[in-house]
Amino acid sequence: MAETIAVIPGDGIGQEVIPAAIDVLETLDVDFEFVEGEAGDDVLDSRGEALPEATYELAAGADATLFGAAGETAADVILPLREAVGSFANIRPARAYPGVDSLQPETDLVFVRENTEGVYSGIEHEIADGVTTLTRVITDEASRKIAEYGFEYAEANGYDDVTVAHKANVMRTTDGQFLESVESVAEAGGHGYDEALMDALAMHLLLRPEEYGVVICPNLAGDVLSDLAAGLVGGLGLLPSANVGEDNALFEPVHGSAPDIAGEGIANPAATVFSAAMLLEHLGYGGAADRVRGAVEAVLEGGPRTPDLGGEASTDEVTAAIVDRL
Amino acid sequence: MAETIAVIPGDGIGQEVIPAAIDVLETLDVDFEFVEGEAGDDVLDSRGEALPEATYELAAGADATLFGAAGETAADVILPLREAVGSFANIRPARAYPGVDSLQPETDLVFVRENTEGVYSGIEHEIADGVTTLTRVITDEASRKIAEYGFEYAEANGYDDVTVAHKANVMRTTDGQFLESVESVAEAGGHGYDEALMDALAMHLLLRPEEYGVVICPNLAGDVLSDLAAGLVGGLGLLPSANVGEDNALFEPVHGSAPDIAGEGIANPAATVFSAAMLLEHLGYGGAADRVRGAVEAVLEGGPRTPDLGGEASTDEVTAAIVDRL
Ligand SMILES: CC(C)[C@H](C(=O)O)[C@@H](O)C(=O)O
Ligand SMILES: CC(C)[C@H](C(=O)O)[C@@H](O)C(=O)O
Repeated sequence: MAETIAVIPGDGIGQEVIPAAIDVLETLDVDFEFVEGEAGDDVLDSRGEALPEATYELAAGADATLFGAAGETAADVILPLREAVGSFANIRPARAYPGVDSLQPETDLVFVRENTEGVYSGIEHEIADGVTTLTRVITDEASRKIAEYGFEYAEANGYDDVTVAHKANVMRTTDGQFLESVESVAEAGGHGYDEALMDALAMHLLLRPEEYGVVICPNLAGDVLSDLAAGLVGGLGLLPSANVGEDNALFEPVHGSAPDIAGEGIANPAATVFSAAMLLEHLGYGGAADRVRGAVEAVLEGGPRTPDLGGEASTDEVTAAIVDRL
Repeated sequence: MAETIAVIPGDGIGQEVIPAAIDVLETLDVDFEFVEGEAGDDVLDSRGEALPEATYELAAGADATLFGAAGETAADVILPLREAVGSFANIRPARAYPGVDSLQPETDLVFVRENTEGVYSGIEHEIADGVTTLTRVITDEASRKIAEYGFEYAEANGYDDVTVAHKANVMRTTDGQFLESVESVAEAGGHGYDEALMDALAMHLLLRPEEYGVVICPNLAGDVLSDLAAGLVGGLGLLPSANVGEDNALFEPVHGSAPDIAGEGIANPAATVFSAAMLLEHLGYGGAADRVRGAVEAVLEGGPRTPDLGGEASTDEVTAAIVDRL
């Protein structure tokens, strides 16, 4: 039976990198049915909502979703879509690749970010004139889930170092809960790990990324630290991500809609093609996933490159080179 | 009349770098009276509280305070001390210096961090078993104060670029309030600035720090981004900070108590001596502040260096070299 993939290009370069990833997926010997959904700034303008109900349902019902990028409406699109697929974990690998300029060529990190709570709770109020509050929520349930996912991911993918980011010296009760939940999961499973204050960790990741592997994070810490890691390996053009739920998942490049280069046909498709590889892996096509990753890495090392990596190639040229190597 | 300086060495290398800074201050032609207060892990053990009331009062009543570092009890010591001096702004310059290895030698940043609210509100609860909350507070009053301070600092110190960090796409009401307050201060004063999402900013600071100058931040964003900047310029050993209030202020290195090297006499005194320079500036001794900074920079460029900077010199040798150049 065909795998039904919801495809949501969104805004800006999302419209360029998603077709690239589909070209790559169609080269493989897997039976996909791609169903396109619309979302983003233009959809808000034309239809009055950035994420139509139909797109939400499409993602919720598909075997997996591939998302491109959204512009101004990014939060209104991606946060509900993560919810649509029941995602509790956001997986963000950040690796340096041979042939790509990077501040720290030894970087090989995977952020396992809690994807449902923390300061993303949506509970905000203006209590009095000029006095506003947001309720940061940390629960044992969500913290255990992310910890379990993180430890299993590390084991399955051969990472020896697991670090748990937190700011429990200040957020004593909430990040205290996070650490307590992680600890009980680690004990039950016999997993080892280190704790690190997120501020100090930001510095250490910069100076000695090779000492870290999987980093389990509360929601906002994962958001910030994974972007920092993008800086370490040469920018957002290479970073894929997976939003994983119990039986569903959504895959997206970490980069945004890049309005400055949108429409020029020079967006780097690597992050989205790597995201497609994560999708393959998730659906059980591990061999195909490896082939796709290998092809992208070969092109990064010796093939044409887009301007963000110092080259002059177009999205299409890079995509063709990836397909060629499959 | 003598300037009364509260001196709180605290734990670990705090006990080594504070005497170094005092040596430097005593070389100058300023009449200081140093009064020592105790705080930190050892004080908790011996007296049952990490920050005795007397130390709090000492800081509150002094003309300025110089603080070293605290260990496990850092939050219990530094957060109340910041309150003791009525600090609303935490100023953290992060500059690369000639002669010091750094990932990005063009870095010259100053973080102007809100110092009283955000997730540092202290309002936390366990709502139900395994369900915890923290109330993030953002007020117009505190946001305006930090914006005013930041814009004035940029002007007084010749920084053209002012960036305001936030995550208002997710924390819509609270960081929305922050942005609104900043905007109204900017309009009233005719100041220009850019806004930046804190996650994207983490990446951009890494890749192109030379495009940024003063960065005005909510409390936690400032905490994390300034540590990241420490990574850019070669580690925490060089970064000073000022906690500024209406008529009082506390100065401290950004680094911690460094238990791994404490007692060995090899801690880098630069961050604390730079903090002492900020203290001099604050008390109106701008000329002396410049001389101290110049002496530290000369030593960083051509003098003895501690192991964190790849040298073999002791704290005392580096301090003597600084004093020599005054
Ligand atoms: C667009 C925004 C809501 C989102 C987030 O904060 O999660 C983005 O920064 C990301 O990391 O995917
Ligand atoms: C010790 C801790 C409470 C403190 C903070 O979070 O402000 C520290 O990280 C700092 O940046 O001075």
